[in-house]
Parts: sequence; structure tokens; C-alpha cells
Amino acid sequence: MSLSKKATTPVVLGMDIGGTQTKIGIVDTTGKVLSFDSFSSLGDQAFPNFVQQLQAKYQLLIADIPKECKVIGAGIGAPNANIFNGCMEKPHNFNWGDLVPLVSSVEETLGIQAKVTNDANLFALGEMTYGIAKGLKNFIVMTLGTGFGSGIVVDGKLVFGHDGMAGEMGHINVNPNGRLCNCGLKGCLETYASVTGIKRTVFKLMADLQVASSLRSHSFEDLTGLMIADAALDGDPIAKRAFEYTGEILGTKIADAAAYFSPEAFILGGGLAKAGDLLLLPTVKSMNERLFKAYKGKMKVLISGTGTKYDGVLGAAALAWEHFGEGKS
Amino acid sequence: MSLSKKATTPVVLGMDIGGTQTKIGIVDTTGKVLSFDSFSSLGDQAFPNFVQQLQAKYQLLIADIPKECKVIGAGIGAPNANIFNGCMEKPHNFNWGDLVPLVSSVEETLGIQAKVTNDANLFALGEMTYGIAKGLKNFIVMTLGTGFGSGIVVDGKLVFGHDGMAGEMGHINVNPNGRLCNCGLKGCLETYASVTGIKRTVFKLMADLQVASSLRSHSFEDLTGLMIADAALDGDPIAKRAFEYTGEILGTKIADAAAYFSPEAFILGGGLAKAGDLLLLPTVKSMNERLFKAYKGKMKVLISGTGTKYDGVLGAAALAWEHFGEGKS
Repeated sequence: MSLSKKATTPVVLGMDIGGTQTKIGIVDTTGKVLSFDSFSSLGDQAFPNFVQQLQAKYQLLIADIPKECKVIGAGIGAPNANIFNGCMEKPHNFNWGDLVPLVSSVEETLGIQAKVTNDANLFALGEMTYGIAKGLKNFIVMTLGTGFGSGIVVDGKLVFGHDGMAGEMGHINVNPNGRLCNCGLKGCLETYASVTGIKRTVFKLMADLQVASSLRSHSFEDLTGLMIADAALDGDPIAKRAFEYTGEILGTKIADAAAYFSPEAFILGGGLAKAGDLLLLPTVKSMNERLFKAYKGKMKVLISGTGTKYDGVLGAAALAWEHFGEGKS
Repeated sequence: MSLSKKATTPVVLGMDIGGTQTKIGIVDTTGKVLSFDSFSSLGDQAFPNFVQQLQAKYQLLIADIPKECKVIGAGIGAPNANIFNGCMEKPHNFNWGDLVPLVSSVEETLGIQAKVTNDANLFALGEMTYGIAKGLKNFIVMTLGTGFGSGIVVDGKLVFGHDGMAGEMGHINVNPNGRLCNCGLKGCLETYASVTGIKRTVFKLMADLQVASSLRSHSFEDLTGLMIADAALDGDPIAKRAFEYTGEILGTKIADAAAYFSPEAFILGGGLAKAGDLLLLPTVKSMNERLFKAYKGKMKVLISGTGTKYDGVLGAAALAWEHFGEGKS
């Protein structure tokens, strides 16, 4: 042991930029969050305002960790972020411009190297590094929230495609004449398999069927995924059927994804996944009915065990470790 | 230049085991076929008979190449072959058993290291190494023959999945209540987008419509993809509609595949791809209609330029170079 040389402990900055809140944390190699903060993303203001605030918060954060820790890089999750150019591309709900130079701004301002990708990819990295996908090298995560996000891991690596835009399973087609999607297409998976999707299904069922339902007392705007889940657990026929229908469609598309990737597991996260077996059972049943014989009995569908305030930051930290960890940079 | 040391030129054995014929060739680093032979696969006989014959043919083959050439390994393409265990798994139309130890047999008998994968994967490797996909790192090949095969390349590497069984796009679902597939499922892509699939479409159209068609004089067994293509070029309404319908379905599924992989190109091969624009134009039109906005204008659909007797052998050679080329083994 050398007395003259002081040992340093490498740590990373994990940053999760959401539509309303940004969370930042300093994370060590084991996934321990050494310090943490959150603040408004200021999406309605100009981008430099965000950067200025980030710089101030980062200084507070690193003042709060042991002296021997050295931040070796930053991982960032952000909407519509592209790992290839380090930018957010036309992010909705942000007044930051069409091409937001996130990586170069962070590198300049904080003086550390950085990588950025979208939330679903971070979810996948977080699950692989600290979560339910630990030890897996081929799996797909799907977040069923307001929309539908997906992150695909092949042979231990995220699939980015030739331009960084791979992994948009929310826009695969369920029905060429199906529901209109925000993206302009018809019948995208996210118009069915998401919180918004199951709300649409509930309203369709209330229109089609004549059965009584507690959900008939709610407006579309007021209805939440949790209300539908609670109603289903209470035996409400519309709510139960809505989960079955969602699972049928999701299971069919998971069987398709198996035929592309032959992964070990599919991991469901996001608001709708909190419904647990209500979503999982019809999804697995439908998947098994549609699965090509080569895959039968091999595919797991799991509900993500995460759901703490640190999730996004940990996924971002995993991205930083992947790129800037020992021997990587 | 050293006079005492004789230089050797590394070459590989490429082997393409088909349902009826096996083709073998010695291939150099540039893709030149130095010697070539083909013989019956003897699929109806026991596996050792095939191996015995292969050994004899291989000896003739290497007697025929320049003395300084040294075979450093073999690449093999075979039906239902799995690169992970080196076996053919339950190959149809072969009396070779449920798990055929192809790699170990070749390594023992010929005394060279070997790798095996299925035909569609070799098609992808061949296109990447010697063909239309040269320089591409993210693309998908699809063979529309009797069935539908696919090989997927992500970041320059074939996607095998956790068990070697990835890339079965022929069995993604077009319609949950669609045509019965050989695999036992309903509505698989290969029941529509293949030579057999377009024959089924022609017969469906002849049943549904009352228009005259030259194709009405053929039995299902006699009808070929070429006849349908010729009829379409002659303006036959059933044949033209059949290609449009096939392209609509294929284009929709290619748009889905774009959302998973964001590749640079899709490459069509196999018997039906020989129809060229008859298949390509409706496919591209349908793809563009269904493509998520992030991919619009970025996706190429190409018809494979290959079609020589060497194709399978070259793809197999590419597999060998990938695994046993300089610095690889």
C-alpha cells in the first residue's frame, strides 16, 4: 500500500430529466445513491436556464459526498434523446428547441464526460444492472404509462439501430384500421396497451355493451388506470374485460417480439404494470397461444420490481458505468 | 521477404446443406470461389452416410486448390441449425435424427474448426460481406420462398437471441384469425408473404371475385410464383391484385420491424423477390403508409442482387471468416 498516493473512489452522476421534474444523484459502483436531489425541469423556459440550475444543484450534490469520491462521468435519461448525437430531438412539452445539445452542455458546464439516451433504454439498463434483469443478456422492457416505451437488449447491449431511434414498439401496428394514435398512424400498440389505451378500451366497452359498471360515473379525463384496476378487483365486468382485451393484444405482440429476438424475458413497467396479475395473466395466456413452437415454455413475462424515486437515476448511472467505467473510456 | 519460410494463404470451406443438394466450396478472403462441388444431401439416409460422402468430396476439393492455401475453418448453413450447440434441431425432410451434431462431426472428420447457422442468417452474412449490404451494420434480410426466412443484423452482428432461435419473422402474426400455418398457428406472415402465400392469395381471390383470369386454368399444385408474376405483367387482374395484397401485408410488417430495429435497409430474396417491382412497389407503398415518423424517408427496401449457385457457399464462407479469420480464433 502506498502512503504517498491517496486512493480515489470512482462514482457517477445519474440524471433523469422528466417532463416536470429532473432527478440527479451520485451513484457508486454497487448502485448505492450517495446523494440525491430533484428540481423542476423548467421545460417551459429556455434551455440555458435549465443548465444554470443544474450546475448549481450539481455543486451542492458533490459537496455532499465523501472526499475520496471522484465523478468520472454522467449518464442522462431524457425524452426523445439520441445517444448518437447527444441531443434531445424535438422533445414534446419542452421549450428547449428542436435539437437540444444536452451532452455537450453537460460536459462543458459540469466538466465531466456524458452520455444520454431515452427513458425506456435507461429502464432496460437499470433492470440489467440493478434489477430483475440482472444476469440476462437478451430481454425487452416495456413501459405502459401515458404512452408505451420500449428498450431492447440483445447480447448484453441496447439496440439503437443505425440512427439511435430503435425500440419504438409503441408504434408497431395492431390493426391497420385501428385507433388513431398521437403519431398520426392508426392502430399503434400504444393506443391499446398503455394507461391511455385501457381508458379508450373502457370507453369502447361502455359504448358497445349494456352491462352496469362503476366506471360509468367517471369522465374520460377523470378516469385513471388505478380506478380501472380497483374496479376490476371488485369484479366490475367492464374493467375486467378491459384488462383481458389489453392483455390479449399485448400478448400477441410479445409473441411477435419473441420471433424477432428470442429473448429470455419481457419486463413490464409503468403505471399499468402496477395492476400486476390483472394485466399479466391475460398477457401471458395470449402470448402462449400465439408463440411459435421454438419459443414455447422459454419466455418469461415479468413485472418490474422497481418503483422507487431512484429508478431513473440508477438507470442513468448504469449508462455512465457502461461507458465510463474502468477500462471503458 | 524471407526465403526460408513459405507463405500460406488462409482460405475457408463454405458449405450449404439444402433439402436436396449440398454445395461446398473453398473461398478466399476476397470471396473468390477457388473450387466448388455439389452433391445429394442424402437426407433420406442416415447421417453418417452424409458425413462419409462429405469427407470424400472435401478431399477432392482441397486437392484442387493451390498448394499454399490452408483451410482455416468451415462455415456451414443448414436447415434448423443452431449456432450455439452446433446442431440441426429437428430438421424437416432429413432422416438424421432430432439433434444432428453437425459441427462436431465436421470438425472430427475434416480436421478443421466449424460453425453452423441457418440459411437466412447466412444470406444476411453473405449480403454483408459480398453483396448489397456491404458497409451496412443494421439491416434485415427476408427470403420469400416456399416459406419465409429472416436474418437480422444489429450493429454488425447477427441476432441469435438467448438460445440461437431469433429471427423467425415468418411467424409473426398478421391476423389472429388468419390462415393456418404449417407451424400450427393462425395468420403467420409466411402464410401470406411467400411463394406458397401468394398462391393461397390467388386462390382466395379466384374464390371471392368473378373476374376472368388466366390463372383459373391451373391447379394449386401446378401454380408457381413465376406464373403469377408473368400473369401480373400481362395485366391479369387476379395476379396483379395478389401482388398488391402481398405487398400491403409485407410492407406493414416491415414498418413494424423498423420500429424494433431502425435498420438502414430491408433486403428481399427468395423466389418471390424475383418478381422485382411487382412485389417491391406495393411493399414500399404500404411500408411508407405505416412507418412511424422517426423512420420516414430513412428506410430502404432492396431486392437482393444475388442468385448464383455460389450464394449459399459464400454466406457460409462469410460465417467462417467471421469466426476463424485473422485474430478471431
